[in-house]
Amino acid sequence: MRKFAAEKSKNLLAHRKICAVSLQHPTASVFSSQSHQNPLPQSSILLRFLSSAASNPSAPSESMASDYSSTPIKIDSINPKVLECEYAVRGEIVNLAQKLQEDLKVNPDSHPFDEIIYCNIGNPQSLGQQPITFFREVLALCDHPAILDKGETQGIFSADSIERAFQILDQIPGRATGAYSHSQGIKGLRDTICSGIEARDGFPADPNDIFLTDGASPAVHMMMQLLIRSENDGILCPIPQYPLYSASIALHGGSLVPYYLDEATGWGLEVSDVKKQLEAARSKGIDVRALVVINPGNPTGQVLAESNQQQIVDFCKNEGLVLLADEVYQENIYVPDKQFHSFKKVARSMGYGEKDISLVSFQSVSKGYYGECGKRGGYMEVTGFAPEIREQMYKLASVNLCSNISGQILASLVMSPPKVGDESYESYTAERDGILSSLARRAKTLEDALNSLEGVTCNRAEGAMYLFPRISLPNKAIEAAKSMKTAPDAFYARCLLNATGVVVVPGSGFGQVPGTWHFRCTILPQEDRIPAIVSRLTDFHKAFMDEYRD
Amino acid sequence: MRKFAAEKSKNLLAHRKICAVSLQHPTASVFSSQSHQNPLPQSSILLRFLSSAASNPSAPSESMASDYSSTPIKIDSINPKVLECEYAVRGEIVNLAQKLQEDLKVNPDSHPFDEIIYCNIGNPQSLGQQPITFFREVLALCDHPAILDKGETQGIFSADSIERAFQILDQIPGRATGAYSHSQGIKGLRDTICSGIEARDGFPADPNDIFLTDGASPAVHMMMQLLIRSENDGILCPIPQYPLYSASIALHGGSLVPYYLDEATGWGLEVSDVKKQLEAARSKGIDVRALVVINPGNPTGQVLAESNQQQIVDFCKNEGLVLLADEVYQENIYVPDKQFHSFKKVARSMGYGEKDISLVSFQSVSKGYYGECGKRGGYMEVTGFAPEIREQMYKLASVNLCSNISGQILASLVMSPPKVGDESYESYTAERDGILSSLARRAKTLEDALNSLEGVTCNRAEGAMYLFPRISLPNKAIEAAKSMKTAPDAFYARCLLNATGVVVVPGSGFGQVPGTWHFRCTILPQEDRIPAIVSRLTDFHKAFMDEYRD
Repeated sequence: MRKFAAEKSKNLLAHRKICAVSLQHPTASVFSSQSHQNPLPQSSILLRFLSSAASNPSAPSESMASDYSSTPIKIDSINPKVLECEYAVRGEIVNLAQKLQEDLKVNPDSHPFDEIIYCNIGNPQSLGQQPITFFREVLALCDHPAILDKGETQGIFSADSIERAFQILDQIPGRATGAYSHSQGIKGLRDTICSGIEARDGFPADPNDIFLTDGASPAVHMMMQLLIRSENDGILCPIPQYPLYSASIALHGGSLVPYYLDEATGWGLEVSDVKKQLEAARSKGIDVRALVVINPGNPTGQVLAESNQQQIVDFCKNEGLVLLADEVYQENIYVPDKQFHSFKKVARSMGYGEKDISLVSFQSVSKGYYGECGKRGGYMEVTGFAPEIREQMYKLASVNLCSNISGQILASLVMSPPKVGDESYESYTAERDGILSSLARRAKTLEDALNSLEGVTCNRAEGAMYLFPRISLPNKAIEAAKSMKTAPDAFYARCLLNATGVVVVPGSGFGQVPGTWHFRCTILPQEDRIPAIVSRLTDFHKAFMDEYRD
Repeated sequence: MRKFAAEKSKNLLAHRKICAVSLQHPTASVFSSQSHQNPLPQSSILLRFLSSAASNPSAPSESMASDYSSTPIKIDSINPKVLECEYAVRGEIVNLAQKLQEDLKVNPDSHPFDEIIYCNIGNPQSLGQQPITFFREVLALCDHPAILDKGETQGIFSADSIERAFQILDQIPGRATGAYSHSQGIKGLRDTICSGIEARDGFPADPNDIFLTDGASPAVHMMMQLLIRSENDGILCPIPQYPLYSASIALHGGSLVPYYLDEATGWGLEVSDVKKQLEAARSKGIDVRALVVINPGNPTGQVLAESNQQQIVDFCKNEGLVLLADEVYQENIYVPDKQFHSFKKVARSMGYGEKDISLVSFQSVSKGYYGECGKRGGYMEVTGFAPEIREQMYKLASVNLCSNISGQILASLVMSPPKVGDESYESYTAERDGILSSLARRAKTLEDALNSLEGVTCNRAEGAMYLFPRISLPNKAIEAAKSMKTAPDAFYARCLLNATGVVVVPGSGFGQVPGTWHFRCTILPQEDRIPAIVSRLTDFHKAFMDEYRD
């Protein structure tokens, strides 16, 4: 039944246009339902792989699935765009990790490790990073303003957090933190965000350009919804890319037009290559509408040079493309020779104003040194769109009423943290700098460790939260993966998980040059855990290579 | 330019299938850009109407719009589904209200009222409703757990809020309230929600069936995204309906198949009429996939009788329809002869189990007695879908990572409030009952006031937060609206706003029987304000009728 359904959905998808190059999607889900049909080499790593893969908790058995025969919705009658969408960051490898975690709960000796280390996702606080105290004080006070006037409050909250909470409440009509706000977010908070943008860039920012959102993801979806009319509309995306983009483009029925980042030059972005891809897509009838740039890069960690950004701005202007700038890692820079420049600052520095280039910048409270993923705060700054288009954006925002107010408040706080002279200033800077310097050390240690492995090369993480090492897999490993109908890097990631408890995401989930294999690993485990992770990773890799070396 | 663009988009939309009956969309936006071209009767109300309408702050002037000629995205090159989508709850009338509010800030004497009263949206705390203390205490403590162990905390937080915060933190892996959670929401919170559902219904609930979401709206979007493949897929919706449904169906490219609620029988839902509409749609080649029921009704306020719900369940089962049950007003019942029954309870009481009927129940923290709109919390309970469909839902949830954690916590709290014996129990019940009994009184007062007006009839609000009176508009008023190219009820609502500062939503934004006119007005202004509102409304209506009586 399941296999039949999968084939049917494959047929359903067959008519959809695949543009320029096909992304290598992980085929792990196919594997998990078919692995028992394949003869397999009897190796220790593979045996473990097999036993785990067969017990994917979310995979229905034949009999279970057929019990639903009298319900109306079948897998081949849902929206094919949903079937087509992939999101490897929480895909099959993570399902397997959750299963192993359950095993460990029941029997701590069930696997050769005592815990799962989730390096699959940029989720700092899940790995022990502590929130910034000042931000949480202000959020708590805004959640329960009744305590603001109490004497006890001064004993347990900093003076500037109390003052800031009062300021924020005064910006909210009726001080109602439980009310829907303006569809774009509370005006006073947007003013604060604009002051932060102006301080960062040295160019004016307009609160009417800010759309506060529940994290950056809904903002990206909103832009895709606006721009994509059909599969003939294309969006230029870097390869490798953060799979939100491929997922959102698939869900909105558009075509992803890939351009490759050059691993040999530290994941360099060559505008001449982007132009080649643009022209190839256009020659196939694709109306390319926008260019996505992720800076600092995810999963690649590169930080673009300003001169490169200028080329990109000119390219978008000349080619009539909207520039969608994912700038959520703007605070995460780890090397002294690079710094973050917003695309808006670059464009304005070049003399391009509001009417010259259409530019959207995405920001999130989930990243930076704060890593407040669970708060779902973020915004997009939208410039260079005619008023009648902006009205449509406002309408789209209004259909969902508003983003959550705590996330809105936090977005304003990360753009206006404590200043010199504020009571919290010293503790705030100590917390911030402690996190950022530790992240830089972790990135370097992991990068060095990866580069010391046989057949592994890893560019440095100049920024963001990830390493994206390339692994030269032996033919025997590739054959083993093939026999199990999974991508070689997904095979490697599963073996790694089963042997060490470390969860990484196969490069095939992000896209990569065909025939190359990678994985994405966050730099987020706490610093005192890094040596053990390095040691586990090294031992695993050696064993893997010993087993599969040609 | 604007007119040209509007015509172009009209052509773009012309190919889209309009099913069964066309909803009357408010044409206020057409009006605002064209009103200056029409000769108008010189009446006091109309003069005021005109002067405001001409100053819509978001409407671009010809010259402004043309300045964007070198940017790539034009109004006729965006996704036509976005153009097609309407959301009157925050539409033109609200834009006008915001403009008037700005006027009042600059000059408090600029209008014949001193404030805008937003009765357009179910947003209780914006109109002065206070949050439930216990809920806010727990949220504040979870935002800043560092204070949980401090002595001062016991002085300003209730003992059970501290205990509850500890319980919740223990349910969150690593106590990390700043981490992304499981894509469906924190497992322990889903367990708590299920206990609440079980206590409500007397039937088991499964935490794997719960998807926590940022309010109910994203949950509705997710179901539409899953079910709608093309314009040939239809969703049965009540008319009048909450415009989220028409907006979401439009954005996902499906067809809204309307069924009428019967105003004469208190907005009764006649299954025979629904069947008629279903068959009409099917005869036009529409694949009808689901039935939306809003209970208690929005905007109509009716509460379905259990026997009626049984008919609906049987109908969905027999016709192979997914039952999408909007149950966000389940706590808002104001009349002793009605009570809320969840559709799941009704279905299970009839003996239908998980494999017999596909049922989705939407719940939100924005409604009830808590009215925490700004927190964006909610969930859907999904039953009767095969595991392979559930995997697709999980994937869709994963693309956005998770809903905000404060909203998740609040969703668990509203489903498990303080119990007898808890320190907060008495104050909690006093706050809850105070709000609900006051809402019931406000509903009755406003209903009586509306029914006393010439040509107005208003069904009682058995539940929810709205009244939806019918207004028999004189021909002269209809002609005046026609000459201004606006819907008669939108014309009435604009005149009302300009004369009184009271914001209501024209019935045309919800759909209504052609030739009838309504508006939706919330019952949410604080009780001490109701007499003044009644008096303003009464005076306005009298003046309006005097001016336009045939």
